[in-house]
Amino acid sequence: MSQDQVPEIVVGRLPLYLRMLEFLKKEGKPITSSQELADRLGLSSAQIRKDLSYFGEFGKQGTGYNIDYLLKQLRQILHVDRVWDVVLIGAGDLGRALAHYQGFESEGFRLVAIFDNAPKKIGAPVGDLQVQDVTVLPRWIHEKRIRVAILAVPAVAAPAVAAKLVELGICAILNYAPITLNVPPSVRVYHIDPVIGLQKMAYYL
Amino acid sequence: MSQDQVPEIVVGRLPLYLRMLEFLKKEGKPITSSQELADRLGLSSAQIRKDLSYFGEFGKQGTGYNIDYLLKQLRQILHVDRVWDVVLIGAGDLGRALAHYQGFESEGFRLVAIFDNAPKKIGAPVGDLQVQDVTVLPRWIHEKRIRVAILAVPAVAAPAVAAKLVELGICAILNYAPITLNVPPSVRVYHIDPVIGLQKMAYYL
Repeated sequence: MSQDQVPEIVVGRLPLYLRMLEFLKKEGKPITSSQELADRLGLSSAQIRKDLSYFGEFGKQGTGYNIDYLLKQLRQILHVDRVWDVVLIGAGDLGRALAHYQGFESEGFRLVAIFDNAPKKIGAPVGDLQVQDVTVLPRWIHEKRIRVAILAVPAVAAPAVAAKLVELGICAILNYAPITLNVPPSVRVYHIDPVIGLQKMAYYL
Repeated sequence: MSQDQVPEIVVGRLPLYLRMLEFLKKEGKPITSSQELADRLGLSSAQIRKDLSYFGEFGKQGTGYNIDYLLKQLRQILHVDRVWDVVLIGAGDLGRALAHYQGFESEGFRLVAIFDNAPKKIGAPVGDLQVQDVTVLPRWIHEKRIRVAILAVPAVAAPAVAAKLVELGICAILNYAPITLNVPPSVRVYHIDPVIGLQKMAYYL
């Protein structure tokens, strides 16, 4: 099935399945079932079987899923069976927290550089990296053929930085700025926003 | 329609509509349409009309939506026409970034306290707050009848802290720890995880 024929909501659940399978593998399990995944993730087993069926047959009725095999397949489907170089724009509290985050590399992403435009931040060490002047961002993206960026700048700066990233060939932006970015349809934006999550939960309070 | 009859995916889009309506209002617009919302949000206008129809009639064919009215209705539906007190657990880089985040209060949430268990962090100022010893968390939650918490602690500490929060009566947890939390069905968890977003986008790369 071609990429665009799979509903986006289904694609959005694949990383959750991947994470849960990794967790079960760490627990030492070789096999799982749609029921076990469903119970752990708070979904229905039918939903999980239907989601996976978009991509092929990964288990047999009654025998469950081989965890190693399903992990490998899901990583291929999500294109994280390789490691994507990622640039991070913004070296404030949030940027520094992200630079210290240990969970990227095992999941298909490597933070290769962090940028800011504040003179007092440029040159400062952040984890294993050193904050670069944002003026050298174009060279980095071009030379390393980077396609993925994380945006951790204030809302007021985000539209201009995003426009620049798109111009430089970035195709996927993880956006922490509390603002909707206007980008061409060919560019994916995933918006991380604490308020969206809080408001969704407040509905159920 | 009762709360549980609305699909969760629909509820999850309401905060996006709210945010976009606030943005259009700031632009000075009094009226919008499902088509304008759709264009700005990258959804279909039929989807937006269908989502809103779960909750009532908010506009007339041909005249569009009155932005002030729809904002008010959506805030009521999401229960953010009041302000929820929120506690934040974890005063590392991420906790500090969240404590400095200016966007909570206008959207229905007020960060009232930040907690950590590290002696060298306790007492330190973070924005308008001061880091409290996590041992006083039960008293805070009880006295202020707090129902919402943000978890910004390392993955290894998250399960125990989450269990404690649930025991203390917290009903909604915004979880930044890169781990799936096991909580009773009555407790909502919204998991904020950069890897999930990056992996979803990688599918389209």
